[in-house]
Amino acid sequence: MAYRVVGRSVARNDVIDKVTGRAKYAPDVVIPHMLHGKILFSPYASARIINIDTSLAKSLLGVRAVITGKDVPYTYGSVIKDRPIFAQDVVRYQGEPIVGIVADSEVIAEEALNLIKIEYEEKEPILDPFEAMKADSSLLHADLGSYQHNKITYPEAETNICSHYKLRKGNVDDAFEKSDYIFEGEFSSQMIQHAFIEPIVAVADADNVTKRITIWSTACNPFVIRKELSSAFNIPMGKIRMIVNNVGGSFGGKAYSKIEPHVAALSLACSAPVRLALTREEVFNLIVRGPGHFKIKTGLMKDGTIVARKIETVWDTGAYAECGPVIARNSGHTAAGPYRIPNVKIDAYCVYTNKNIAGAFRGYGVQEATWAVESHMDDIAREMDIDPYDLRKKNILHYGDEGATGQIVEGTGLEQCLDAAWEAVNRKEIKRKSGSKLMGRGMACVHKATLAPSVSSAIIKLSEDGTATLLTSTTEQGQGATTVMAQIIAEELGLPYEEIYVSGTDTDYTPYDTTTTASRSTFSMGNAVLLAARDIKEQLMIIAAEYIGVDKDELTFEFGKIKVSSQPEKSYTIKEIVSKYYGLNGTLIGRGLYRPDSVPEDSETGQSTKITPFWMYGTQAAEVEIDIETGEINVLKLVAAHDMGSAINPMNCRQQLEGAALQGIGNTLYEEIKLNDKGITVNPNFHDYKIPTAMDSVEIESILIESQQKDGPYGAKGVGEPALAPTGPAIRNAILDALNIGLNHLPLTQEKILAAIEENKEKLEGC
Amino acid sequence: MAYRVVGRSVARNDVIDKVTGRAKYAPDVVIPHMLHGKILFSPYASARIINIDTSLAKSLLGVRAVITGKDVPYTYGSVIKDRPIFAQDVVRYQGEPIVGIVADSEVIAEEALNLIKIEYEEKEPILDPFEAMKADSSLLHADLGSYQHNKITYPEAETNICSHYKLRKGNVDDAFEKSDYIFEGEFSSQMIQHAFIEPIVAVADADNVTKRITIWSTACNPFVIRKELSSAFNIPMGKIRMIVNNVGGSFGGKAYSKIEPHVAALSLACSAPVRLALTREEVFNLIVRGPGHFKIKTGLMKDGTIVARKIETVWDTGAYAECGPVIARNSGHTAAGPYRIPNVKIDAYCVYTNKNIAGAFRGYGVQEATWAVESHMDDIAREMDIDPYDLRKKNILHYGDEGATGQIVEGTGLEQCLDAAWEAVNRKEIKRKSGSKLMGRGMACVHKATLAPSVSSAIIKLSEDGTATLLTSTTEQGQGATTVMAQIIAEELGLPYEEIYVSGTDTDYTPYDTTTTASRSTFSMGNAVLLAARDIKEQLMIIAAEYIGVDKDELTFEFGKIKVSSQPEKSYTIKEIVSKYYGLNGTLIGRGLYRPDSVPEDSETGQSTKITPFWMYGTQAAEVEIDIETGEINVLKLVAAHDMGSAINPMNCRQQLEGAALQGIGNTLYEEIKLNDKGITVNPNFHDYKIPTAMDSVEIESILIESQQKDGPYGAKGVGEPALAPTGPAIRNAILDALNIGLNHLPLTQEKILAAIEENKEKLEGC
Repeated sequence: MAYRVVGRSVARNDVIDKVTGRAKYAPDVVIPHMLHGKILFSPYASARIINIDTSLAKSLLGVRAVITGKDVPYTYGSVIKDRPIFAQDVVRYQGEPIVGIVADSEVIAEEALNLIKIEYEEKEPILDPFEAMKADSSLLHADLGSYQHNKITYPEAETNICSHYKLRKGNVDDAFEKSDYIFEGEFSSQMIQHAFIEPIVAVADADNVTKRITIWSTACNPFVIRKELSSAFNIPMGKIRMIVNNVGGSFGGKAYSKIEPHVAALSLACSAPVRLALTREEVFNLIVRGPGHFKIKTGLMKDGTIVARKIETVWDTGAYAECGPVIARNSGHTAAGPYRIPNVKIDAYCVYTNKNIAGAFRGYGVQEATWAVESHMDDIAREMDIDPYDLRKKNILHYGDEGATGQIVEGTGLEQCLDAAWEAVNRKEIKRKSGSKLMGRGMACVHKATLAPSVSSAIIKLSEDGTATLLTSTTEQGQGATTVMAQIIAEELGLPYEEIYVSGTDTDYTPYDTTTTASRSTFSMGNAVLLAARDIKEQLMIIAAEYIGVDKDELTFEFGKIKVSSQPEKSYTIKEIVSKYYGLNGTLIGRGLYRPDSVPEDSETGQSTKITPFWMYGTQAAEVEIDIETGEINVLKLVAAHDMGSAINPMNCRQQLEGAALQGIGNTLYEEIKLNDKGITVNPNFHDYKIPTAMDSVEIESILIESQQKDGPYGAKGVGEPALAPTGPAIRNAILDALNIGLNHLPLTQEKILAAIEENKEKLEGC
Repeated sequence: MAYRVVGRSVARNDVIDKVTGRAKYAPDVVIPHMLHGKILFSPYASARIINIDTSLAKSLLGVRAVITGKDVPYTYGSVIKDRPIFAQDVVRYQGEPIVGIVADSEVIAEEALNLIKIEYEEKEPILDPFEAMKADSSLLHADLGSYQHNKITYPEAETNICSHYKLRKGNVDDAFEKSDYIFEGEFSSQMIQHAFIEPIVAVADADNVTKRITIWSTACNPFVIRKELSSAFNIPMGKIRMIVNNVGGSFGGKAYSKIEPHVAALSLACSAPVRLALTREEVFNLIVRGPGHFKIKTGLMKDGTIVARKIETVWDTGAYAECGPVIARNSGHTAAGPYRIPNVKIDAYCVYTNKNIAGAFRGYGVQEATWAVESHMDDIAREMDIDPYDLRKKNILHYGDEGATGQIVEGTGLEQCLDAAWEAVNRKEIKRKSGSKLMGRGMACVHKATLAPSVSSAIIKLSEDGTATLLTSTTEQGQGATTVMAQIIAEELGLPYEEIYVSGTDTDYTPYDTTTTASRSTFSMGNAVLLAARDIKEQLMIIAAEYIGVDKDELTFEFGKIKVSSQPEKSYTIKEIVSKYYGLNGTLIGRGLYRPDSVPEDSETGQSTKITPFWMYGTQAAEVEIDIETGEINVLKLVAAHDMGSAINPMNCRQQLEGAALQGIGNTLYEEIKLNDKGITVNPNFHDYKIPTAMDSVEIESILIESQQKDGPYGAKGVGEPALAPTGPAIRNAILDALNIGLNHLPLTQEKILAAIEENKEKLEGC
């Protein structure tokens, strides 16, 4: 079907506001009488607090409140409710909030920090998750067994394992017995930063009488945070208002409460608006992508058919669970790779340590699982002397196959991605060697689930002049969601795209949406928006029939015009109909609620006939050259072929792929947060922690595969997260192709490559 | 039926925020980078602009924009589109905006005003509406015939009559022929100020590229203003956002655009946020209640039956129509009084003069019409020697009678009010004389229509913990609307009243409501809220049936709990049901749209079977004492018996009656804006223009008549406006009773009373 607005690369509807500096972000919020907050963070990764003396700080001129865990004895956490707002006697990581200060200015608040005296008893931190898992390890959370947690978290009481996810399919032991070949590998991913441009900021306006709290924040799932605050402070949800306008990048790092509980406590403490803005260093210590470790064992038959795969993953979630258990679980149910394997056993452990708290990161564990399994695939291919493409092609999930979680594959996108990416990177021959430089090609596939269960709702207000406003709680983080939603409305109601306004999120006003994560917005919110538009249309037809004086069945809606079958020459505009109906003025309210089907997993086997409303697929291929004298690596080309169901805005989709490629290069080649042996971050800034800049960009060929997701809005599904996952293993496999050396531990720095070359001189010989 | 929340005087839900200064009003709005506006208003009531020199002002350091009518050649006006934003060559009243300035501070903007040089050609202003109506009068609006106007405005081209409303019922000429008695009277009401506490302020944030405009203002009907701005600036409605939080009193004076077009133009001119705050003097000159003049002729039979009434009203609307034509029309269809009169002829003229612009004032012309007709009723009673109560009782509209507009009376409240008020004021004997003081009693009735057509819509968001947020565009002006709406939701959904939050108005987010005027909110928005609550209930029952696994018919909803008929011991909370349904979290969205029936009037006769969805009724009685040596008057007691259908919050209703009584005393006894012979206001401040203070309060007995409006929410209808109307004539008729002197021209100042006593010594003799 030909569409007029959908499928076109219309200009983003937020571009002018962003270029002119007019777009509002949380850091821009200024409120009359606003005070400024600061937090004293723990300098130790593990300690007991003996005494806190805030008396001098309290008496500093301009200080309005000083609070500690004694004043706010509440805990929070959606996944596991394990986290105090301010430390209660025990410090579990460097950067744990201990004291909150409110003052007339940031400078005074900072000065007051220096006047606080805390006596600590320093303790030896547990920094190694494998140590933490041992039976005799001391416990970070002795009360783990009694903590509230959600249904997809499986804590093991009296241990440091805050969740143990299991996937069981077939019988791996039997299958390994029968296998012709068995391969094993160990892979790891490092601790990194989300590195969003906008730091974390929140402004709260609350008072201690009504207990009503309004928070402007950089959050990407404000309804989740509203619920966390409601539970932590024991305040009804209706009294908590979260406002999120634009978010300056999140990549998962702004999901769940960050400093919202703290700023709320500070505002309540002095019944005045308080702004709390973290420095870049504080952001580094507040939230990270945690390290992951993967042990994989695969059994194959001689012809390359994979018959069994066993995986043990250990996720280091840091001092508090945050969403670590969900990351472990999501990583777990994806870790077998997008292959048809009858026997799978996966154990994913999420483990407490005295390290920085690990949160969601673009892909929720799938980037890391993909790193491991796709690297392992090429190792197998090399050992078996099969082309890595052929190994994948042989085992890849097809339409109708059952995946590891028990869900049947409903789309054909994966194989299309595989073929398209490999074709593109092989379009011309490469020279394998040039001077001291060796070249190679590699590829990697990804499959990724989205979040379930979840719900999205949307309201469209159609004004009497036919201009529409969409109320949605999807947060705009730079991904272009407002543009896509406006395109859907424009298409469905036949309105000018430019005249559709998409609201910011305000939990008092905008309808519920679970979260803007998991690449779910285009599909879930897109469907809700589509339903809301159809609801508008339905209402228009009813009132049009009444006022034209014909039967509703005689009417048709054609791109913004209502036509009567008996009067083919006439048509009515929305404006005409709405004004007539109300006698004067009025707006129509369209409502859409979308709650995709899903089936909860079995807690012992991870099996479900529908663990996710849709799967996302992609394949990337890389071409690299390595200077074997220096270890320097150049990514010459990246091909990213991803299945987006359909591209509502092709330009937006390409930007997702291109942005992800650059982020993936940084994640793969140089980014790493380093802790010293006391558990203290040594490089919490962009001087010592390098991220790619435009200068590091490479040639990217993005290929949009449109498999038409059957229940997606205009056939669309998500693409943002899986876009990142295959970049790392594709580059790694290209290095393997070039050097015959497999590098299993991220990041693949120049030093690490050079060291590997030095150690494996013999392997280079065949190259 | 016994209710749990409705019918109770629960504490207002805005009280704490208002007491602690936390409630947000437009003057509190502060935006980063905000600039400040000022307007140069015309010092002449009538002039031609020869030249405007803004060059010096533009070069003042800190001035960001200077604009005139040349830059913004747009007109606005919902009733008649007759008004330039800034004067276009012609000045039609003192206070007409001529130049707008934006500067870094108010002080700089004011300084810039002094640097503007304007050359005027001063003209003789037309200040008398009767002069203006003459065929040879010069015309204020030569193009009146070509102006856009609404359907209930009847302009006469090539005259100064911007509307001529006609009511024709029966045949008054024949009826006068057959009458036993004919009485005639002339009455007038003066120009007054609304005297709201909060002056008029607006902040606009717009830019000239996207043309998106956000305005925070003191408006009481933001959707009307949105439409006016959309039409004036030719910008789609969806790009205009009006935000109104609390309004510090309106009394109709903040209906329709006030300074919103100006602040929008200023903000567009410099693509920056601009605050425009009027001084009290500027407010006086911006909007007034205009003067009205009434000629009444009544024919009666010997037994006191009224058989004919003829009225000619002239409304002086000032230089631009604003809502003057609607005031004239509304006053017109009420002016015959709440009596059964078979022959009625009313002509209401709305006339342009070079005076201040007259806008809506609590009652929309009905206070003034009541002044005239109810004074006239007592004059008739005195002449015919009938008790004024008996004269009214004999002629009053009963259930089933047809009123002057052709609508059948559907309630019995009017007669109940009449009897209750008269009983209360006569409960004990009064001494008729004491020294130099004479005492008397008087009464007056009122009937009033509300606005039609109109529409109200409401959205209720029910969070998963069972707390509800109401999205409504009813503006809270101090009248207690948010309290009443929360009571309706609490009652209908069985939720704790304290946990229901009612939003402020934001045209981007809150659903359409025509206006917060015309005493329509409790009835219209109340019904929309009730429908939204029922919609929530309906959804709850459906999802409850699904998740309990029973048939929907087995379920009942009992004040917040869902019960299953087969399990009488069990009940389910809203929280339980909502969480189960969504699997995790989610909110329900209830939607209510209320569009009361009405029938447009015939433009030649004013007849309609339903000109208004409901009529409001009331009777007030006053007891006064006058010192005949000084003319000083004391109101000893006021009884206000009003029919509210039912009192959802009795305390709120009493506060409406008490507030109106005090306002009515000021309107009746001393308030008056005075213009000199050039048309310039001489007392534009609260030093020279007196309003009542708490010290002027009198004993008020408020009687709530509950006639149960059949289609009102819980039987309720409106009361705010009619509460004001009978106070004046009740006091006037008490003076007549005391002194035997009828005073026909407002205000009844001490000087005027003393002069009347001096002139009518002989009339005092019988007292």
